[in-house]
Order: sequence, then C-alpha cells, then structure tokens
Amino acid sequence: MSSEQFHAHAPLLDPLRASDASGAADAGGTSDAAVVAAMVEVEVALVEAWAESVPSAAVAAERIRASVDAPGSPFASDSLACTASELARASAGSGAPVLPLVDLLRAEAPPEARRWVHRGPTTQDVVDSALMVVARTAAASIDAALAATVTELRRRAALHASDLAVARTLTQPAVPTTLGARFDAWAAMVEQARVGLLGAARLPVQLGGAGGTLASFVEISRAEGLAVEDARLAAATLPAALAERLGLETPAGPWHTSRGPVTALGDALVRCTDALGTIASDVALLGRPEIGEVIDTSGGGSSAMPHKRNPVRAVLVRAGALRAPALAMTLHTCAATAIDERPDGAWHAEWRPLQELLALTVASAVTGQALVEGLAVDPVAARAHVDSAGAALLSERIAAHLRDALAPDALARVTAALGSREEAHAAIAAETAWESDRIDELLDPHSYLGLVDPAHVRGGRP
Amino acid sequence: MSSEQFHAHAPLLDPLRASDASGAADAGGTSDAAVVAAMVEVEVALVEAWAESVPSAAVAAERIRASVDAPGSPFASDSLACTASELARASAGSGAPVLPLVDLLRAEAPPEARRWVHRGPTTQDVVDSALMVVARTAAASIDAALAATVTELRRRAALHASDLAVARTLTQPAVPTTLGARFDAWAAMVEQARVGLLGAARLPVQLGGAGGTLASFVEISRAEGLAVEDARLAAATLPAALAERLGLETPAGPWHTSRGPVTALGDALVRCTDALGTIASDVALLGRPEIGEVIDTSGGGSSAMPHKRNPVRAVLVRAGALRAPALAMTLHTCAATAIDERPDGAWHAEWRPLQELLALTVASAVTGQALVEGLAVDPVAARAHVDSAGAALLSERIAAHLRDALAPDALARVTAALGSREEAHAAIAAETAWESDRIDELLDPHSYLGLVDPAHVRGGRP
Amino acid sequence: MSSEQFHAHAPLLDPLRASDASGAADAGGTSDAAVVAAMVEVEVALVEAWAESVPSAAVAAERIRASVDAPGSPFASDSLACTASELARASAGSGAPVLPLVDLLRAEAPPEARRWVHRGPTTQDVVDSALMVVARTAAASIDAALAATVTELRRRAALHASDLAVARTLTQPAVPTTLGARFDAWAAMVEQARVGLLGAARLPVQLGGAGGTLASFVEISRAEGLAVEDARLAAATLPAALAERLGLETPAGPWHTSRGPVTALGDALVRCTDALGTIASDVALLGRPEIGEVIDTSGGGSSAMPHKRNPVRAVLVRAGALRAPALAMTLHTCAATAIDERPDGAWHAEWRPLQELLALTVASAVTGQALVEGLAVDPVAARAHVDSAGAALLSERIAAHLRDALAPDALARVTAALGSREEAHAAIAAETAWESDRIDELLDPHSYLGLVDPAHVRGGRP
Amino acid sequence: MSSEQFHAHAPLLDPLRASDASGAADAGGTSDAAVVAAMVEVEVALVEAWAESVPSAAVAAERIRASVDAPGSPFASDSLACTASELARASAGSGAPVLPLVDLLRAEAPPEARRWVHRGPTTQDVVDSALMVVARTAAASIDAALAATVTELRRRAALHASDLAVARTLTQPAVPTTLGARFDAWAAMVEQARVGLLGAARLPVQLGGAGGTLASFVEISRAEGLAVEDARLAAATLPAALAERLGLETPAGPWHTSRGPVTALGDALVRCTDALGTIASDVALLGRPEIGEVIDTSGGGSSAMPHKRNPVRAVLVRAGALRAPALAMTLHTCAATAIDERPDGAWHAEWRPLQELLALTVASAVTGQALVEGLAVDPVAARAHVDSAGAALLSERIAAHLRDALAPDALARVTAALGSREEAHAAIAAETAWESDRIDELLDPHSYLGLVDPAHVRGGRP
Repeated sequence: MSSEQFHAHAPLLDPLRASDASGAADAGGTSDAAVVAAMVEVEVALVEAWAESVPSAAVAAERIRASVDAPGSPFASDSLACTASELARASAGSGAPVLPLVDLLRAEAPPEARRWVHRGPTTQDVVDSALMVVARTAAASIDAALAATVTELRRRAALHASDLAVARTLTQPAVPTTLGARFDAWAAMVEQARVGLLGAARLPVQLGGAGGTLASFVEISRAEGLAVEDARLAAATLPAALAERLGLETPAGPWHTSRGPVTALGDALVRCTDALGTIASDVALLGRPEIGEVIDTSGGGSSAMPHKRNPVRAVLVRAGALRAPALAMTLHTCAATAIDERPDGAWHAEWRPLQELLALTVASAVTGQALVEGLAVDPVAARAHVDSAGAALLSERIAAHLRDALAPDALARVTAALGSREEAHAAIAAETAWESDRIDELLDPHSYLGLVDPAHVRGGRP
Repeated sequence: MSSEQFHAHAPLLDPLRASDASGAADAGGTSDAAVVAAMVEVEVALVEAWAESVPSAAVAAERIRASVDAPGSPFASDSLACTASELARASAGSGAPVLPLVDLLRAEAPPEARRWVHRGPTTQDVVDSALMVVARTAAASIDAALAATVTELRRRAALHASDLAVARTLTQPAVPTTLGARFDAWAAMVEQARVGLLGAARLPVQLGGAGGTLASFVEISRAEGLAVEDARLAAATLPAALAERLGLETPAGPWHTSRGPVTALGDALVRCTDALGTIASDVALLGRPEIGEVIDTSGGGSSAMPHKRNPVRAVLVRAGALRAPALAMTLHTCAATAIDERPDGAWHAEWRPLQELLALTVASAVTGQALVEGLAVDPVAARAHVDSAGAALLSERIAAHLRDALAPDALARVTAALGSREEAHAAIAAETAWESDRIDELLDPHSYLGLVDPAHVRGGRP
Repeated sequence: MSSEQFHAHAPLLDPLRASDASGAADAGGTSDAAVVAAMVEVEVALVEAWAESVPSAAVAAERIRASVDAPGSPFASDSLACTASELARASAGSGAPVLPLVDLLRAEAPPEARRWVHRGPTTQDVVDSALMVVARTAAASIDAALAATVTELRRRAALHASDLAVARTLTQPAVPTTLGARFDAWAAMVEQARVGLLGAARLPVQLGGAGGTLASFVEISRAEGLAVEDARLAAATLPAALAERLGLETPAGPWHTSRGPVTALGDALVRCTDALGTIASDVALLGRPEIGEVIDTSGGGSSAMPHKRNPVRAVLVRAGALRAPALAMTLHTCAATAIDERPDGAWHAEWRPLQELLALTVASAVTGQALVEGLAVDPVAARAHVDSAGAALLSERIAAHLRDALAPDALARVTAALGSREEAHAAIAAETAWESDRIDELLDPHSYLGLVDPAHVRGGRP
Repeated sequence: MSSEQFHAHAPLLDPLRASDASGAADAGGTSDAAVVAAMVEVEVALVEAWAESVPSAAVAAERIRASVDAPGSPFASDSLACTASELARASAGSGAPVLPLVDLLRAEAPPEARRWVHRGPTTQDVVDSALMVVARTAAASIDAALAATVTELRRRAALHASDLAVARTLTQPAVPTTLGARFDAWAAMVEQARVGLLGAARLPVQLGGAGGTLASFVEISRAEGLAVEDARLAAATLPAALAERLGLETPAGPWHTSRGPVTALGDALVRCTDALGTIASDVALLGRPEIGEVIDTSGGGSSAMPHKRNPVRAVLVRAGALRAPALAMTLHTCAATAIDERPDGAWHAEWRPLQELLALTVASAVTGQALVEGLAVDPVAARAHVDSAGAALLSERIAAHLRDALAPDALARVTAALGSREEAHAAIAAETAWESDRIDELLDPHSYLGLVDPAHVRGGRP
C-alpha cells in the first residue's frame, strides 16, 4: 500500500471524505494507519523522554527509533495500513490496540532495548496521547483550509460590496443588503470558528500510569538508580518531556476521567462544521435556479439525467454538518459517565466518534474551501430579486417615516399598496404632500443599506 | 483479500467489532465491500426484474449476472474490498458511488447487454435498496445472537431461581430477590428488543426513478414495445419484482424523502444495544470484586498489570450502547430535514451513521451473546450481600406489619434499629408481644420474594 | 386557575405550543397539572384494583375517590396547577413527587381509608404508569390531528392531480411531476407515522413494587386474610386490573430497567415530528416568493416590517422537528444505562425529555394540521417553473431516446443545447430525421409523468 | 406571586431544579419570568443607549423606565410570572413573544415616549440579547457554586492526603492511590469546567436590525436630525452602548445566523454538567454499601421502604448530566442549519433547549456543591478495600521488579500466586533469594503511591 493510500483512504459511504482525498488531507491524516503511526510516535517519544532523566534509556531510545524507521518495518509508511488492520483484529482480547502494538514494537526492537518499550504507561496514556497527536495534525489542516476560506470570502466581500441583494428573514424578503455583506458575514463566522479551534487545539499529552499516580514512573526511576526525590522529579517532569516531543501541551495532571480536553476539542470541531454548514445550506438555497444568486459550480453528475449539475460540494458539506453534532455529543455523554480512576466503557466509546469527527471536519474544511473558491456569483440575479421585492423591501423605512406623518388609516392604505416601487410611489403621493424626489429617495434601496452601505464599509467598521 | 477479510474488517478504534470478527459476523457483513456487493445485487436484480415484463431483458440479465460472477471480475468476493476503495475515491464527483459503479458494470458487461445496466433507476434507488439488503442480513445476524442470548439467560434463570440476591434501587439494597429473577428480567428485555427488530426489519425496496414518478420505467417499457397501459403496468409492478429478488418488502410508493423505514430500523437497532447495554452495565457493576455476584470472564489483559482480568466484553458492549443512540438520532435529524423530491444533503448524511449503527449492533449482539454465555455466577456472594443488608432488606415488610400494631414513636424505634436480623429481632420483640417464630418469619428473606418465589415461578407466571 | 389554563399553559420560549393552546390540545394535556392528575388517577385506580381481590379495599376506594373528587380538593381541576407547583417544591428531598403526593392524598382521605393509599407500589410504579396515561391521551390527540392532516392532503392531492410541477432533486430541477403527487407523498408519509404511533402507543402499566418482585402486594394480600396461593394470585392479577382501569396494556412483567416501552414511544413520536418537519421545510421553501408554489398563509407579523407575512406555522413546526430527535435520543441513553433493579439516575433523566417530547409532538401535529389546512396552492406558479426548466426537465427521456439513435458526439451536442423547449426542438431536429410531432411529444412534460400521470392515478395504484 | 416564586419555580418532573429552589438559584433565575424581565431590560436599555447619540431619547428613556418600574406594572416582580404566561399565549401569531411585549410596553409608557419603544431592532435582537442577559446571571451562579465546590474538594483532598484507597480501572483494582488524590482530581476537573465557562461566558449583545445591516438605526438617527455620517456613527456605536448597559460584550457584528456564541455557551455549560456527572456517578458507586468509601448523605426517603437513605443528590446530578449533552447538541444542529439573513426555524428551535440547559446547569452546580459539602468519607472502608485487593494491587510493581530477575515460568508462578500479601510474600521468597524486608517493602502499598505520595504532595506538584 502506497503512502498515497495511507492518507487517502475514503470510506465508501462518505463521499465528503473522498472529495478531499487527493490534496490537502494528506497533512490531516486521520485514518487507522495515521493513528497507528501516532501511537508508535508516542511510544518512541516516551523512551526518548525517559532518556532525559535516566541516561541508560538513551541508547535504547535510539535503537527503538531505528527499528521503527527501518525499511521493511511494520511501521514503515507503506505497511501501516496493513499493520493497523492486524492490530485491530488483535485488540479484541484486551479491548484496545495497545497490547498487540507493544508486542510488535518489542519484537522489532533489539533485545537489549526491549525492556524500555512501553515502560511505565497505561494503555490509556498511549491511546489518548496518540489521538491528541492525530488531532493536532488534523487541526492544522482545518486551520489552513478555514484561513484560505476566510481570505477568499473577504476578497469576494470587497468585490461585491456595492451589489444589492435581498436580506431574507424567515424565508421572506426583509430589507436591502449587499452580496458583499453576506460574504463578509460568512467570513466572520468562519473566522470565529477557526479562532475557537486554535484555542481548543492546545491539546494535552496524557501520562498517568495505571491509576493516575505515576507510581510506575517513580519506581522505574528508582530501579534505574535514582534517589527517591530524583525519581519523583523524573516522574513529575516526564509528561512535559513527552509533550514537548509530541508537540502537545503539558496538563496539570492526568485526565483519564476528566475529559474536558476531548469534549472541548469535539465542540470546537463542530463549531467549524456548523459554520461551513450554514454557508453550504445558503449556497444550496441561493443556487436554486429560481434564485440563482450564488452558485456551487462543482457540477456533480447524475446517474439518470445527463444535463444535471448538482451542487455536490454544498450538498456534501451540508450533510457533514448534519452529522457532526451527534458525534461531539457522544463525547459529552462519555465524559459525563467516566467513573473510577479509569472508566468502564465511557472511554472506549470516545475513540471512534472522535476519529470520525476529525476526519469529517478536515473533509468539510477542505471541501468548504473548494466550494467557496468555486462559487459563481450573479449580481444581476441578486439585483433582480431586489426589484421583484419592490417597495415591500422598504416597508420598515416607509412605516418609520409615515407613522408620525399619517393617521393610522392612511398609513394602512399605504402599507396595503406596497407592491412595485411605482405603486408605492403613487400611494405615498396620494396620502402625503411630499415631493416626488423625496419619495424616490425613500424608495431607493441603495440609500437603506445602513452599515453595509459601501460608503461606510470603505470607511471601515468601528 | 480473502473472503474472511471481506467480512471481518475491523476498524482500529472499535475493538467491539474486532471481538466478533472471526465468527458470527460473517453472516452480518456491513463493510464497504458488503455494501458494494449489495449494490451490484440491486443492479443485477433490477435487470432480472425487467425481464418479467420485457422479454428482451432476459438475455441481458443472464449476461450481466455472468459478467459479475466471472472469476477475476472486480465484484468477485476477493476483489470487493479493493473495488470498494476505488469506487469511494471516484464518488466525490457525483457525491455517491453509483455513477462509478455503473461505469464498472457496463465495462464488465458484454456490449449487447450494456444498455440494460442501471436502466431507469436513480442513484438513490440503488443506494437505499442496497443498504436495506445489508440491513436485512445484519438483522438476521442480530436476531440469531439475541435469540441465543435469551435462551442462555432463561437457562440461567431456571438454574438460579432459588438463589437469593439483593434487589438494589438507586444504588441501595431494597428488598430480596433472586438471581433467577434478574436473569429472567434480562431475558425478557432482550426478547422484547429482538421482537421489535423483527417488526422493524420488514425493509422496503426503493424504486422511484429520478423524481419518484417511475416515468423512466414507463418510457423504457414503451421503447421496448409495450403499449401504454402495459408500460404503466410494467413500471408499477417492477418494485415488487425487484423486492422479491432482494428479499425486501414492496412499499406503497417511493420513500426518497419519507424516511420512516430508515428511522424505524435505526430505532429498533438502538433498542437492541440499549438492552445489551443495561446487561453489560449490570455485569460490569456486579462483577466488581466488592460485589462479585455475576462476573464477565472474558479476562482482558492489561498493558501494565499482569494480574488484571478486565471485563472486556462488558466494557465494550457498554461502550457500544453509549454510542448507538447518537447514530440513530442522526437518522431522525436527516428525516426531519429531507426536502424536495430528493434531499439536498439530508439523505447523504444518513449513509455512514446507518452503516456504523448496523455494524455496531451486530458486534454488540455477538459480543453480548459471548458475554452472557461466559458469565460466572456466584450465588454464595449474592447470598452474603443479602445477609449483610440484614433486616433493612425487610423494612418495607416490617413497616407494613407494625404500622397498625405500634404507635408512631415505637415504630420509629424499631425502624432505627434495623441493622442485623438479630438486632431487628430484639427491637421488635421489645415493642410487641409477638412470638419469636413470627418475628423470625417476618425477617426471613426467603418468604418475601413475591412472584419470584421459586414456588410461584414453578407454577408459572399468569 | 381555570381548566382552560390547566391544559393551555404555554412556555414562553415555545411558541409552537402557544399556537395550539386554545383548541385541540385540550385533549392532549401534557402539563405538570396533567401529570399530577394522572398520578392521582393511578393511585386511586390502584385501590380500586385492590378491591377486586380484597373486598376490604372496596369502601376505601370509594372514599378515596370521593375525597379526590370533592370540591375544594387540591386535586380539583382548578387547583391542580397550584398543587403541581407545591409537589415540585417538595420533591427534592426524595427525588420524586410521589412521597409528597401520597402525604397529600392521605391527608385528604378519611382516616379509615388512609392505609389503602399507595399500598404496595414503589415510586416508579406511580410515575411510570402516570406518564403512560399522559402519553395515551397525548397520542390520541396526535392521532386525530394527523388523521385530519392526511385527509386534507389527500383532498388536495385529488384536486391538483393534473397540475404540473417540477420534481427537484439535490435542489435542481429533475423531471416533471404534479402537485398532486407531492401532496400524495406527504399524505403517505404522515399516514405511516400515524400508524407507527398507533402501534407504539400500546402503553403498559407499571407495577412491580420496590424491587420488581411484587412482594409487597403478596404480603398485603396475606395481611388482609388471603391464603398464600390466593395472595400470589391477587398480586399477579393486580397489574391487569390496574391497566384496565387506566386504559393501558398489561406487560409481561415490570419494566423498571427494561425501558423499551419508553424508547419505542419516544421513537414513534419523533417519526411524527420528522414527517411534519419534512412538510414544513418543504412549505417554507416552496413558499418563498421566488418559488411561490405552496404557501403557508399563517401570516405571522414582524416587529419591524409591517408588510411581512411570515410562514409562522411552517417555521415553528420545522423548529419542533429540529428539537425532537435529541429528546428521543436522551430516552435511549437512559435506557442503555439503566442498572440494578431500579436505576441510579437514568430513570430520573427520562421524565422531562418525555414530557417535553409529548408536548412538542401534540403541538406539532395540531399546528401541522392548521398549516396543511391553510395552505395556498398556486398551480400557475408551479407550471411556470416547469416552463422555465425547459427541455432540461426531459433530459433523462431525451437521452434514453437518442442514446441508441445518435453517435456520442451528436448526443453531446443535443445535451448541450437543452435550454428552452424550442432550442431543444431545433437541436434534435438537426441531428435526427424525426418528424416535428415526434419531437414535440418527446418534449412534452405531460407525457413524462409515469405513474403520477392523472390517467394512471385515476386508475388507481397497484 | 412573590419574588421567591419568580425565581424558584420548579418543574414537576425535574426534582434537580426543585432541590435548589430555595437558595442560590435566586441569583441564577432562568424561568420564563426571568426571561421577560431580561427582555424588558433590553428594550429599556436600548432607549437609554439611543440617548447617548440622540438627546431627544433621554426623556423618553426615563419615562419608559419609570413606567416599567411603577408599582402595579405588569413588569413588577410579583407580576412577571403572570405576564410571561400572557405573552406566551400571545406569541403564536408572530412566532415570538416580542410583538406582544412591545404592545404592552407601549401601553404602559406615556404617549410621548411610545415612539421610542422598540425603535429599530428586530425581534431576534431582543430575544438573543435577553437570553444572553439570562445566561450571564446564570453563569455567575454556576461559577459561584463551582468555586465553592472546588474549595471544598481541595479541603478534603488535604484532609485525606494520606488515606490509602484502591485506584480502580475498568471496574477492577489496579494500583494504590489515596482518597486525597481522588478529591484532588475531582477538584481539578471542576475547576477546568469553571474556567471554561468563564471564557465562554463573555456573551455578546445582539443588535442588527431586520436584516443585520443596522439600516433602521441609521435611518432613525437621520430622522432625529443627525447628519449622514453622524447617523452612521450613532448606529455603529449603539451595540456597544447597549452592551455596556446589559453587562454584555460588543460583538464584531450581528450574529443572527452565526451562532457560535450560543453553541460555545452551551458547550461550556455541558462541560460543567459533565464534570459534576462524573463526580456524582463516582459517589453513587462509592457510596454503595458494598464499597462505602464516599457517601452522599442527602438521605432521600423512599415511598415504600422507611429505612432507605437514597443518595438523592448524586442521583439527580447524574440524571442531569445524562440529559445535558442532547440539549447542547440541539444548539449545534440549529447553528448548522441557520440560513438566510435570519433563519427559518433553526433559531426558534434554540430557545427552549438553551433555557433548559441553563436551568439544569444552575441546578446541577448548586446541588453538586451540596453533594460535595455533605459527603461522608470513610477512610477505614477505603483502606479495607486496599487490604482485600492484597498483592494484586502491586502486580505492576512486582512484575517490573521480577521481570529481569526471574525466568518467565518462575514469574508466571509468582503472578498466579498474587492473592493476599502473605501468599505473595511466600511465593516471591520461594522464587528469589530476596530478604524478607525487601519483599515487605515491595508489597507495601504506601510506598507505591508515586506523585500522590503525601510526602510528594506536600512538596507541591511541579
């Protein structure tokens, strides 16, 4: 299996993930193979971290890394998918893939280094840390795609700052706005999600040993000749040493049953798919032929209708956004029921939803970027809907101006006549003594744009 | 890839599914390969169904089936996993794996039969029908495992019908019960879930064509020479003919946006994992060394502690039960937002949760069966907890008897003295003139078993 | 508080429930007051059920019912809301409202009847049975509203059987259909949900006593003078006697931790809101001014824009459909974690989501009926979209006909020219020798309606 | 209705909320009455904010506030619950309670001030801002309760720093720990949730006008005599002025469809209930009589068994933690489907889950504090379980020491003999030449506490 396959495996029933298989997802690998690679990295980095306090570990660390990196190793990138499959099958006995992985690492390591493999940690230390490594990489991919999306949306916002459009609320035309304002709102929404992910993606290493006391690490340090206080210091500094090697943060203590890091990550991921889901839903709507203002050009084919150009990117990103909330929620249910010093199922239930959520969010972000970059915008269509909405689009303004000037029954007559701008003009002229220019100004959508008026936008928001 | 691998693929982070990889899951394949096999079956069966009304399809049907079954075909069982992977990658363009599958089927078919491949249906007809075929097979596997589980639980219920145990409510000892009653309650719960799945698993075929009107099928029939009314009849009977070949039901009409069949299936699956989750949670609790009444003997190893025997089956089944509800819920969210004649993302969002839920439920059922068959029961430990609970376990009964006989303050004195049976005996004797035998009888848990009293159980429940 | 208020209490932040406050919801009361009324009914009916086996209970039953029905009783309909509030406040101590309710019932009952109040059951027996009583009433309300909705949709289906419309898939025009076919599909979807609710609403009574053994009922029967076997028979028949009085089913045994009846009910309710959500989403979409085929006439006002007529019923029913799945899912999470003989929190977590889901579904059904009955249908607008879609709406048909007749490049030229019907006509004429009439027929949407062709519909579906 | 009732309304089926009704919840009011109070505050503060730019609003602001504060006003605290009920009933027409509220505010205001009531905003501005005000108050209550909980847990951690206990993983004894370490882990978990809520509770005001452009505010400023640029400046600064008055943050722009603020709040609330749920689940478990290490002393009564002391606080907090994730998830589903400039149902679906989640979290936090403050700790019982676990609790350590010293078969013999410490002592002595003291030390749980060794804890964690 080539390294392309390592990264690009796409599940049959998740075309969203297929849609990013060839490109940016390479850096955001969330496949089983990527998880194995991360577990191996955790195990090797732990030996290297040991070497900082315990010199005898230094040679072992080198040897173990060499054995892992050796051509033909089961951990070489072209073997990882196959190794993942074997570990999966071997994991039923203990309920996790760590025991068989450790067996494999020991078998690959030279005999004298073997005792340093997996020395001290518990299964959960390895899996939790590895998933954080996977998450860190995925978060970087997501961040890059969202940043590019924001840039593109801001570019479009500037481009269409003067293009009138209908602001729709509860499905109905409300007031005038601009296409630029819509793109600007989308950009702000994605940027907020991106910043939130950056905050939540300060991901901690896990290292607590069997019961969260790090007793094994103290004991091993003692066995390797350190004095009591030095041994405790060695154990106490090991998490930071490991974290540094893995690009993770050092937590205040083990989080075997305190699952805030996992739920905060999951929540931040869903806020990304939420933002992308809103844009995709808007594009799916705005690209309908009856509206046609902003169009997904992905041009998906149909198995039956040769003419059809389906908005496949919008549809798939929207589908992803419908799925993500339940995945993140499962992480909370697990967090709320995590008991003892390490849980009785609530932890095991986290793995798959977290992996799925990471994969889904990478794919949403990459596909969302492509969606936004490929949008076709039709300012003429947008303007046509403004004209169709007629004077009704100014009803808020008209009412504000006439409320003081007219008796209620006269006001009601005007409100009832809000069809085309011409009809409204006539109705207002009939009830008021206003000059025609004043009425024209009142009915001009360009002059009722508030803070999205291009004149104001160029001046900058406060 | 061997056929064993076809069925037994286990995701790395779902050891529950690894735990059933070798055996009963063969019949409940829910892998990507199995989905491809089902899609192929739908496409071939459709041509065969055509042949019932349109004789010219008969030869094409034979040829297409032969091409699919040919050694070396991409649809041979040892090639399916690889084919699934290729279809996945090719599905991004249209958002579904059907277009590339149809291309492959046409390429394999002899030229003269090609026009009959995928003649009339829409993508959704193929995917929905194929997922129902997969679900039917999975449901059969689940049904078998649950039936075996019920049988085993009933056997144990009979065996332990006379073994006293504490009935615990809100974590505290309440009244006496028997181990048999507990097994009996579990059996009834699983049986109810099994019967519910049987009801929900009357799964419909999907056949509506591009817009749910079956217009393409009428048109093709006309093109093949049928008269108008005959063509309509051909289209109208095609769903039933296809359903019969696939072992599915014939629906009243297309259900492209009416997703009751999908949500009903998902709900029934979760009711299975709910029942198994309750048992697994109970076993995880009852097998703690401090309780030790009913023990999971799966004996999972630890990566750190050689003595440890983790209740891995209970833990994994419980973990599955924590995950399943969110998967079924996603199907409802999709159903509630399915719009137009075929939806804009809500349908695509169903596939993966449904596949995951099917796989998870098969694995839960098979592992649950192994859990129940491997239980170690310790009636002595159960009895010891009854004795530890002492007279408190009879407090309801004591209060019922003394409430009329004693003044409130005397009753309160007795209630406060409910420690061991001896202490309670003394306290009651001090406040009443009752004979010692009567007090002994009052304090005997064997005589406060209600309808789970073995004497009654043998007589049969009403 | 009047009886109108008893039923019609609307939470401030759930306008969907306000929208049904005045009418049909009277019969589907799900308020706190309704729950108290149901708990009282359970307690009184239990004494009456006792009287069937234990004659001494007969007088007590009469007296207790009289005390409950007495004017000025805290259980009179105009006091129930206030009583509910007091019971709520008093329920923190024991974690459920039953203990304070029993105190109140005893205080109201004449002294000689008091010992029969709440004789034998556990808290869960009362709450579970009462919620099933509430659910039964709510289900009847829902059933009535859904039945009326189906009737109305079928009426509209017949009325618009010949009105052409665009079938839209993945947001894009696909093939011709009729407005009648759309209404017919909606009717079938609602009817399926309604039938499913009927099946799930065979709701069981709960009666198991403290630990599910019914020991208290045997003991009480003995204390009242029955022989051992008669006492067991009395306990064994009590659930059926209670069920009959409450209009519930008799279960095979207690379901204190076997929560299938609750989850099946929840799932069936959500299938109703799913179906209504699809219709509401469709109406919200189809009623946009750019489409305007099917319009919600509820005419909701805006706080800012006097002209606005918001599709409030569609919006609120859709909002309800977005909320319901999570409520039903919570019931599953509870079911999956129900342990011991009665659970340690999982049961308590069910109450509120179930009550909310019942209330929401009643309101959705009643508002959904109003939505459907108030729809404005615009066949002219629907037909205009068919014309706008032009020949593309026939692309499936055109391709089917030309695929054999033309070389691929010629076919591609035709497909590329599918704009208006006139352009398509010219393109086909240029590539084929077909007569103009044949091309006209090919491009006529009326003749590509498949089984929704009015001629076929009148003949009846198979 | 007294102000006590205003805050303390408890739903019948949510005893968790009853349990905090009398005390700390006063400051965290989330009732319908509290929401109305917040909406009124938003409307009045908006007029005051207007007055900063538009002097003519100053008098109106004073008059409107006076009318709201007047005795006998429908907004007086003893009338709010009743007003809420009326607004609820009147909200069906427009789908939100704002229109009827504005009518009421105008009716109360003196005629000359009326035109300033609700001048410029849209319904969503009022409801979103009001819910943020409610959330801010609730978050403060939660913060206070969590802070007190952390303080109490840290006090207990110090008190029990030397008390040995069993660390349990996957339900089985793993290694020694201390009761202090457990309390410390709980404290860290709650503190993390508390800090997360502080971060998420920087809640923004909402002010965008009908379409998010703030056009109405510019227009009103113009109508009140401001020049164009001054009018734009007035509109641009209005959100900050309003935010300051309401104690909220000023957002970068309207968030009508960018729902990150709502989902981030919901997620942070659930992280609080998650943490409390873990503690409550642990207490429910550890307080079982078979374990009895840490006991909830809330002493909930039973309706059947007079002796019973149910861990009601633990049960109710745990129940709350099972419900909360689904509520927060619904907010994400809404966020992902929020379309147009203001959504077509997704926004309406947020209100009730958010209110419920706020109420539930306040109640969980207050009850959680009471739970923790009321815990009974039994170090003797904890120590007894350490002794029962025997040498198995040191198996990790024994294996580490013997792995190098013994042949595999000898090691296996020792591991198999890990029963009591005495048995283990004998087995090790039989296989090694170690002195008895060395073996004693190896088997002493006090010396295998790692970083939770009291000696280390007193030295402080790194």
